[in-house]
Amino acid sequence: MQYPTLRLLPNRAALEVLDQRRLPFAVEYLELRTMHDAVAAIRDMAVRGAPLIGLVGAAGVWLTVEGCVHGNRGIEELREAAAGICAARPTAVNLAWAVERMMRVVEEQGLDEGGARRAREEVERMIREDAATCAAIGLHGLPLVEAVAARKGRVNVLTHCNAGRLACAAWGTATSPIYHAHRAGIPLHVWVDETRPRNQGARLTAWELAEAGVPCTLIADNAGGYLMQRGAVDLVLVGCDRLTRRGDAANKIGTYLKALAARDTGVPFYVALPSSTIDWRLDDGGAIPIEERDPDEVLRIEGVGRDGALHDVLLAPPGISACNPGFDVTPARLIDGIITERGISPATAEGLRWMFPDLAA
Amino acid sequence: MQYPTLRLLPNRAALEVLDQRRLPFAVEYLELRTMHDAVAAIRDMAVRGAPLIGLVGAAGVWLTVEGCVHGNRGIEELREAAAGICAARPTAVNLAWAVERMMRVVEEQGLDEGGARRAREEVERMIREDAATCAAIGLHGLPLVEAVAARKGRVNVLTHCNAGRLACAAWGTATSPIYHAHRAGIPLHVWVDETRPRNQGARLTAWELAEAGVPCTLIADNAGGYLMQRGAVDLVLVGCDRLTRRGDAANKIGTYLKALAARDTGVPFYVALPSSTIDWRLDDGGAIPIEERDPDEVLRIEGVGRDGALHDVLLAPPGISACNPGFDVTPARLIDGIITERGISPATAEGLRWMFPDLAA
Repeated sequence: MQYPTLRLLPNRAALEVLDQRRLPFAVEYLELRTMHDAVAAIRDMAVRGAPLIGLVGAAGVWLTVEGCVHGNRGIEELREAAAGICAARPTAVNLAWAVERMMRVVEEQGLDEGGARRAREEVERMIREDAATCAAIGLHGLPLVEAVAARKGRVNVLTHCNAGRLACAAWGTATSPIYHAHRAGIPLHVWVDETRPRNQGARLTAWELAEAGVPCTLIADNAGGYLMQRGAVDLVLVGCDRLTRRGDAANKIGTYLKALAARDTGVPFYVALPSSTIDWRLDDGGAIPIEERDPDEVLRIEGVGRDGALHDVLLAPPGISACNPGFDVTPARLIDGIITERGISPATAEGLRWMFPDLAA
Repeated sequence: MQYPTLRLLPNRAALEVLDQRRLPFAVEYLELRTMHDAVAAIRDMAVRGAPLIGLVGAAGVWLTVEGCVHGNRGIEELREAAAGICAARPTAVNLAWAVERMMRVVEEQGLDEGGARRAREEVERMIREDAATCAAIGLHGLPLVEAVAARKGRVNVLTHCNAGRLACAAWGTATSPIYHAHRAGIPLHVWVDETRPRNQGARLTAWELAEAGVPCTLIADNAGGYLMQRGAVDLVLVGCDRLTRRGDAANKIGTYLKALAARDTGVPFYVALPSSTIDWRLDDGGAIPIEERDPDEVLRIEGVGRDGALHDVLLAPPGISACNPGFDVTPARLIDGIITERGISPATAEGLRWMFPDLAA
């Protein structure tokens, strides 16, 4: 893994994040020094992906603690900042989860030099935990790939958006079984949905799979159903931004359409996530707040011109309006299983509670 | 209708077609003088849409007849040319239907001045017939829109690709009920799928609806399922490139995904087409040849830059491969009805045979 998604800078209250708005056309890091930097990085999608925005949100709390300690500001200001971080993006639950975890640490430890040191350590622990969690997701998902390989030889996986290592500290969620299978020498190939409007598939997933040497082919989001009809997909693996306790999955807009096609054609459809993505307070996926993003993301797109420079181009007649919901909800009934760090659970309240009795309370 | 899709030039063996590759950024006409011009216009998608490529294919036969008559070439060369026109694009059946109809006329009439005149008349008749057929489709589809309006007031229609007037001589197929409802003063709004990779929705449907004053909103192809889940779609209307006699519908890639979402959410899903789109020789939609197009259509896109000029930009990391199927097949079981020039038929062999006993033989 040549380019980590984030790293804390030694001996300084700052971190660097890989600026994912520039990929795959440039590899650039962004330095975050304040809570405002962290919020902006999340809101403007320099970092994205539920686990990663959780980690950057946690780092935002740490940076605020440093600011409070050295600026003699109090816990009220910290709480306000924490709320601001949680509001940076509304759909993923990891952000609130990570910020709450950080706040518990700080409130236990106190708002002083020791508290700041402890906050930094907690962020580092969360980064290590995320990498370990994603590795475990990969090991639990691996048998799904092995089973197809045993039957057919080559395995064709379809994925939507980027639930890859770029969405996490390492390994990714949906990509972790793919990377583990690739390392184990299983011949596999990934259909990458381009994932309009922000094209995270074309820009991020294709880039990270190619960097890791995993064979992949880019497709328009429209093509997945056809490929499933023709038997060209053995397994669908996607990530998740928020899972309700009964197993409804909010994920990047368009995921629901792939789940429908998978069910209609008999292709197994799995959602991979760390348990921090589960919202134990919510039953019905219809109640998940869905982010409405800037219509310009639909009307315009960025790419490299024939002149080698980046251009932002208009795709529609001037004056046309657009609507840009960021996520949709795949009902639990369309999901064959939830791949977590503890194993594969059915997408049911009972299954999830059985696997996470300590969290489901 | 300010800009017709095609028109025969008076007193000359030539026609003009609206160059749809330039829309919505420029309105330009292309003059076609030979069969090769016609084939190139169809293959390179200066004209597209099943009914329109049928008409341009028919005009290609007429232009070939003119060439044969004035160049002293024989019927064998004409037959060869006809086969070449049919092969310009493989999925739509209207092309073969139109070329066969022209060939019957010419073979009856003979390859002389009279035959050439008769061929031109036949193309003009087909253009008039197409406009009348599309108008009839609109009148038969109108009650579907009226029924929603009676219940709810405002009607939200979703459409995919361009089955609009730009795909025909006038009115369009899927858009004809929309235009008729709009003229009747029914308040309605259209969700326009952008329709990657060639963005016919963003470039053509949005343009023609706006030109006609029909309120519309552009969305990413991924968004339709979410909008249906949230009750924001009352009716899905799409066109068709080839319908089998039992009602399986090949249409622009991604149509199948919308049909699945419509069924899952209880939204009525209708396919609008002229009977010339029905392939009476085929039962199973899985047997329809699906065109595989240039991967560059996925990897690159064209739009207007901040400098006002057209730019063709790369969307993915260099070296990534792409796959680009042009159509998918929506099985008859997902279709609530087929809107034709004779009325609405169920998507079944019995229903279609009952409505077209003269053609189904």
